[in-house]
Amino acid sequence: MVRRVAVIGAGAGGLASVKCCLDEGLEPTCFERSEDIGGLWRYTDSRDGGRVSVYRSVITNTSKEMSCFSDFPCPEDFPSFLPHSLVLEYFRMYAQHFDLLRHIRFKVTLSVRKRLDFATSGQWEVVTETNGIQESHIFDAVMVCTGHYQEPYLPLASFPGIDTCFKGQYLHSREYKDVEAFRGKRVLVVGIGNTGGDLSVELSRVAAKVFLSARSNTWVFSRVSDHGFPLDMVRTTRFNHFLDWLLPSAFMKRIKFWKCNSWFNHVNYGLASTKSSNFKIIVNEELPFCLLSGTVVLKPNVKEFTESSAVFEDGTTEENIDVVLFATGYIFSFPFLEDSVRSLFDDNRSLYKRIFPPQLEKPTLAIIGLVQLTGSVMVGAEMQARWVTGIFAGWNKLPPTSRMIADVLKKKDLSRRENLKMSFISYTDEIASCAGVKPSVLRLLLTDPRLALAVFFGPCTPYQYRLVGRGKWSGAREAILTQWHRTLKPLRTRVVDDSSDGSDGWHWMWLLALPVALAAGLLLSKYPRLGWTPQAGLQL
Amino acid sequence: MVRRVAVIGAGAGGLASVKCCLDEGLEPTCFERSEDIGGLWRYTDSRDGGRVSVYRSVITNTSKEMSCFSDFPCPEDFPSFLPHSLVLEYFRMYAQHFDLLRHIRFKVTLSVRKRLDFATSGQWEVVTETNGIQESHIFDAVMVCTGHYQEPYLPLASFPGIDTCFKGQYLHSREYKDVEAFRGKRVLVVGIGNTGGDLSVELSRVAAKVFLSARSNTWVFSRVSDHGFPLDMVRTTRFNHFLDWLLPSAFMKRIKFWKCNSWFNHVNYGLASTKSSNFKIIVNEELPFCLLSGTVVLKPNVKEFTESSAVFEDGTTEENIDVVLFATGYIFSFPFLEDSVRSLFDDNRSLYKRIFPPQLEKPTLAIIGLVQLTGSVMVGAEMQARWVTGIFAGWNKLPPTSRMIADVLKKKDLSRRENLKMSFISYTDEIASCAGVKPSVLRLLLTDPRLALAVFFGPCTPYQYRLVGRGKWSGAREAILTQWHRTLKPLRTRVVDDSSDGSDGWHWMWLLALPVALAAGLLLSKYPRLGWTPQAGLQL
Repeated sequence: MVRRVAVIGAGAGGLASVKCCLDEGLEPTCFERSEDIGGLWRYTDSRDGGRVSVYRSVITNTSKEMSCFSDFPCPEDFPSFLPHSLVLEYFRMYAQHFDLLRHIRFKVTLSVRKRLDFATSGQWEVVTETNGIQESHIFDAVMVCTGHYQEPYLPLASFPGIDTCFKGQYLHSREYKDVEAFRGKRVLVVGIGNTGGDLSVELSRVAAKVFLSARSNTWVFSRVSDHGFPLDMVRTTRFNHFLDWLLPSAFMKRIKFWKCNSWFNHVNYGLASTKSSNFKIIVNEELPFCLLSGTVVLKPNVKEFTESSAVFEDGTTEENIDVVLFATGYIFSFPFLEDSVRSLFDDNRSLYKRIFPPQLEKPTLAIIGLVQLTGSVMVGAEMQARWVTGIFAGWNKLPPTSRMIADVLKKKDLSRRENLKMSFISYTDEIASCAGVKPSVLRLLLTDPRLALAVFFGPCTPYQYRLVGRGKWSGAREAILTQWHRTLKPLRTRVVDDSSDGSDGWHWMWLLALPVALAAGLLLSKYPRLGWTPQAGLQL
Repeated sequence: MVRRVAVIGAGAGGLASVKCCLDEGLEPTCFERSEDIGGLWRYTDSRDGGRVSVYRSVITNTSKEMSCFSDFPCPEDFPSFLPHSLVLEYFRMYAQHFDLLRHIRFKVTLSVRKRLDFATSGQWEVVTETNGIQESHIFDAVMVCTGHYQEPYLPLASFPGIDTCFKGQYLHSREYKDVEAFRGKRVLVVGIGNTGGDLSVELSRVAAKVFLSARSNTWVFSRVSDHGFPLDMVRTTRFNHFLDWLLPSAFMKRIKFWKCNSWFNHVNYGLASTKSSNFKIIVNEELPFCLLSGTVVLKPNVKEFTESSAVFEDGTTEENIDVVLFATGYIFSFPFLEDSVRSLFDDNRSLYKRIFPPQLEKPTLAIIGLVQLTGSVMVGAEMQARWVTGIFAGWNKLPPTSRMIADVLKKKDLSRRENLKMSFISYTDEIASCAGVKPSVLRLLLTDPRLALAVFFGPCTPYQYRLVGRGKWSGAREAILTQWHRTLKPLRTRVVDDSSDGSDGWHWMWLLALPVALAAGLLLSKYPRLGWTPQAGLQL
């Protein structure tokens, strides 16, 4: 039976873990390396100390309603997409509201190893160091909440010449804070993830030239989705999830590509083909116009670097490159875990439900937030923490080791075939089922049809996981029914009168004009083709 | 009969005027105040010397194909929307190709007055000053090409307190060059034209807070239009122009609003209502996301300023405003013209076809480029210059003064009712008709149907005005038929393979899935409403 839990890291996952421990009557102690909460979302200008933080201009990719802790909605006057300062402010409000700070110890580095009697006790020895003073602690369980972004992935070996010939500067995006160092320079950004896209756009405003080298097919979405609603609130619904399940995946993919291409044609822009089976998705509102105005120039993968140039796989060369910025992501890294434990999972797919190393004799180690979702990882991490603390508290159970290992092997095989992020709803629903908190739309339909419709057709906001089961929150229903209100509220700083101006006389025209409208609408949507002259190799 | 023409200003309009004079066998002398060509498009960091230039980050609002000189397409590797450096580079290519520079005299200030015998000779005395040396010249005609942007419009009287109470800084956008001066400040931008929108977005990246005060209803368009094609190439077609003429204007307005709202709902964002009869249109790709992420906060009109705050018309107050940036535009100003001439036109609507002061005894003064169009003013200015030089050369004629005055009065009355920009196609076609160079689509249909379709359904590019009549250019047909090629060419720096991957097996699924697709498509486009809970005053 677990009582004392060590939570490592006081970012989003760590805060949620501490809170879930308290909810389950456990005794958490959170160890944080830096002097404050917030993890990578606490922006600092300095690059030292090995601490990772976001770049200055970062704004969340998922909306506040889809990214908040499930029983603590963001303030209604917060905008839908948050700059880092507001994310941190929200974390502080959460920590204060649930009185989490007194469970956190700051400026602590540590190492974690199994106790000798681990096979029977499941206990861990945590050796901490603060201001040079070492201490040893015994914990019944450990929740690792250090996240994805510890160790930069810098694949120099894939770029011959970068560290031998190339005389310019190169760095990883982790070292990037601000555009200033790049003013007037010719910059090559390698890698078109969300970071590569963001930084290219940002650098284009000060650099002499920005090239963005993309290896993979990339679909670009705007966070400003249909009618200006946040992308994830429009897309991530149980209804769409149902359609994804119901209809052939190739067909659904086509619909999504078609919709995305109606914003801008990804073939014409050199980003992706509808035929591509391997692709990634990023969000970026500005990249299309940057490409159209030539302030960012897309290039294929780099073949090699010479003294001052990059040679690309299509045989072209860009000369006089001053800086190469690798936006090539991160690798998982848990240097504080003893080797025998760390070696149990080479990546997160070796973990049962992306959380538990199944081979451990006792399930007292949980990795929180090491999952890549099509939605907010914060929400996924909180859901993980709820399930994990239920298991630690003893009222919930893991299946036998053999079944966990079989499950891991099966899914590892599946996920190797498609290198996509996991579906947000699939994953959180799966963990919610384990935790016994997944809402049943059918049951809701009988008892509360208005709520059921909002749950099924509306955005799959985290409050949905507080409607039933352990940890049920009395505010959940209200939070769901007011989620659109909180979304629009911050925009209402200038109110437009949308009432009729009295000139109702023209309404009859709709009747007359409707057939013309349909024809015109059809033509209007097609007209780029009408004046079109096919040119060798050009596709509309 | 005119022979010697003074062209005042060596920006876009001046260059086109010099070139048109040469085409007509006239003898132009262009006087430019600064030391180089390019007008406001020649960016300089300095704010001194009274010279206006664009801000550093500016990018053209109209595409290269829709904004170029009619017989000189932009290079195919230029992007569709040009930063100021490329606009200037294009001007230099134009000036060099047509050997214009030798007709331009730099660093010249001047004054213009009628000669005593003007009533019979139509001649002008131009007194120039260069390096302190004055000279007097006689010209047969004058083309004023100094443009809109000479005199900033700073309506301080409309903002009580700004120059009496307010302790912060205030300035006109003309003085704005770069964000640096605004780092960390709380900035209020007054006026939501293209400049106000651009500067708000740009300032949001460094300022502590940006408020954008909008008096008028404003519709925001993206230059990245349907399928990623340039907005003006998609919108500004003779086919659309025909629909505008054919269908009720309220209906066409609704269709445009509907399309614009499908990007983002302008009521929800506080920008404009579909019911608004007075509105303006700006282009801005980034403003919606800035509003959605709260980095720009929209506000209504300012009622008054106090020592450090702005009080708005809705009664709200924003405290601690450091800087007020007036993006309130410019007023027409011709300080170099003698008063008796200047007083003939209080604004450009007093000019016949926006060009000729009709009361002058002789039509030897033309104001070029003083027209606000829904498309490129450069193209409009070049068309004006072609017509004007034809009149100067004597083969074309103006109607009698009385008819010109009647026309001005009629149109002035019309345009007072709607303060919109003039339709690009209407205006350029009108001037082209006067100059005898307007193409006839019907005639083309009989002789060259492929070209006719491109002219009617394709973008109304300036090459269309070089197909027939005086100044006909043999390259015009080819330029029209390759305009899409030149648009896509600069994007093809990374080529995506869009050929089939061989998995054609799934095509049959379309047949099966089509009915579902239609239903799903309908639902997908509507689903924000499905989970919607009406809240007081919120509109979807």
